[in-house]
Amino acid sequence: MKAIEPIPDTMQAVVLHAYSDALDALRLETRPVPRPQRGQVLVKMTAAPINPSDLMFLKGLYGVQKPLPVVPGWEGTGRVVATGDDWLSRMLLGKRVACAAPNQHDGTWAEYLLTASARCVPLSDSVDEEAGAMLIVNPLTAWALMDIVRRGKHRAFVQTAAASALGRMLVRLSLHFGIEGIHIVRREEQAELLRSMGARAVFNSAAAGFDDQLRAACLQHNATIAFEAVSGMTAARVLRAMPDGARLILYGALSEAPLMADPRDLIFQRKRVEGFWLADWLSKRSLWGQLRLAQQVQSALGDLLRTEVAERYPLRHIHRALQDYQASMTAGKRLLVMHPK
Amino acid sequence: MKAIEPIPDTMQAVVLHAYSDALDALRLETRPVPRPQRGQVLVKMTAAPINPSDLMFLKGLYGVQKPLPVVPGWEGTGRVVATGDDWLSRMLLGKRVACAAPNQHDGTWAEYLLTASARCVPLSDSVDEEAGAMLIVNPLTAWALMDIVRRGKHRAFVQTAAASALGRMLVRLSLHFGIEGIHIVRREEQAELLRSMGARAVFNSAAAGFDDQLRAACLQHNATIAFEAVSGMTAARVLRAMPDGARLILYGALSEAPLMADPRDLIFQRKRVEGFWLADWLSKRSLWGQLRLAQQVQSALGDLLRTEVAERYPLRHIHRALQDYQASMTAGKRLLVMHPK
Repeated sequence: MKAIEPIPDTMQAVVLHAYSDALDALRLETRPVPRPQRGQVLVKMTAAPINPSDLMFLKGLYGVQKPLPVVPGWEGTGRVVATGDDWLSRMLLGKRVACAAPNQHDGTWAEYLLTASARCVPLSDSVDEEAGAMLIVNPLTAWALMDIVRRGKHRAFVQTAAASALGRMLVRLSLHFGIEGIHIVRREEQAELLRSMGARAVFNSAAAGFDDQLRAACLQHNATIAFEAVSGMTAARVLRAMPDGARLILYGALSEAPLMADPRDLIFQRKRVEGFWLADWLSKRSLWGQLRLAQQVQSALGDLLRTEVAERYPLRHIHRALQDYQASMTAGKRLLVMHPK
Repeated sequence: MKAIEPIPDTMQAVVLHAYSDALDALRLETRPVPRPQRGQVLVKMTAAPINPSDLMFLKGLYGVQKPLPVVPGWEGTGRVVATGDDWLSRMLLGKRVACAAPNQHDGTWAEYLLTASARCVPLSDSVDEEAGAMLIVNPLTAWALMDIVRRGKHRAFVQTAAASALGRMLVRLSLHFGIEGIHIVRREEQAELLRSMGARAVFNSAAAGFDDQLRAACLQHNATIAFEAVSGMTAARVLRAMPDGARLILYGALSEAPLMADPRDLIFQRKRVEGFWLADWLSKRSLWGQLRLAQQVQSALGDLLRTEVAERYPLRHIHRALQDYQASMTAGKRLLVMHPK
């Protein structure tokens, strides 16, 4: 092991004891600080966000279930303070990185994270720590979804949960690239927020006449692809509104309900339903492709791919942070902060 | 117009007056016999089946809704007794044909059918009239689905409603081509019927332990494609059971419920859902491709693609025929017969 500073024996960490809706399944505990082996780095964490995928993970609904007890948190940022004795890991020593948690072990809601060197992206000087903490999950997903639109030569796309952090990135990207976005929200103030950002086609699914208006817009703009994050009947309504042959890509399930679809849309109108998972999408890219992508995304973090932060919490306030986030996911990200200077 | 016998001015026909579940939306009426124009033939009908797609059409759930009142019935057989004055149509004059109804006008549940010459297939001498009446919808669909399995190099497939006329064809085709079929039925006597035909992997969705057994079989045989005709939760259960990356193809909706799917299967396991409609599949084939297909299917009609007939009814007993069919779709086809000798 190589280190640039003394590594303490123990740290504070948020620990999940049961996959559950209940807050008391999560406790702040003292844990040993792990030591990096070959191919690994130890990151001294400075910040980690709460994302919808974290909520799914806590409830046991995410694509990966880790052995319990475990530290949650899929992404964050910090400085690499110790590494295994290999070339790639040593390159990262002392660097500020955006980091993703390993698939089977402890995550980012702790003072230190042990992860694979390959799951870290060195941060450019222009990227501040808070933006770096939220580099991977939302900005990369937004970039990937827009990449699917552009490679598929779709003239327009539909998105649901459009006022989310990721939804707002898609609003900005669609304006930037001149691709028509049809944005679906659930409340009028969310619609106004998106219109104030320049979005033209914004529909409130709780409003009267929503289905007819959405269908008219989908046909007018030939919106042949949809990014759906709610599931349940929302998926069925979007699929119904789209033109023949359209694709619906489910990338979240905020309603926690099964996806529904009208058989007529599938059988007689050749519409299709599939899913998107960032981990899959990234795994199809080469290491160099991933590095180039990380550069592109970092250069847009201050602008197209920026994330608004609503409030910062120390680790010991994890319960309040989760409650605040679930009360209003539109208000902005809730960020856990560690090792304040 | 060319004719081989005198064409009467009127005929008896079953006429639908409202898209509805109610039998009294259907009445036997006297109607004028239409006259063929260029590209058309007049078929003196001898038999026409009741298929699930007819039930969907009567209820207004089919992919096509025709202007009312209209004669239902998507397929049947008879002799071409009059044609328009063009080469293809004149070739068919006097021939026994399997015929499909036009997309916007009257169908096959009548003494005469006016349809496009291109929607008729001349019958080989070896094919009797009853088999010819049921040549198009089920045998062609079964052949198409097996073609999808073979071209996709799937080692095994799953099918629901496996005791239906079409399901039994898939059982025979899978045994013939040496492809493992995993067959799902809803009652124990249906399971026994399929086992008596030689099917090995047969599962009753009403039995205890169904989901676990189905999943074990799907993984064992690597069943990466499913043909689903029920919709609702049946689709979700099948999708759940299949291995990562599997495709579910919906070709019917016997439950008349929306298709459901677990978001985790779509997002984290890369499973996909799409539909199949015979009309689409056929339209991608050339005229010669369609003719060759009609020959292949006819040669298998007495054997792999045979249909059991439960009972025959004159047109005036349409209400009873529909009631009997809906009471037991496994018992065999209900056939309407016209112009008995």
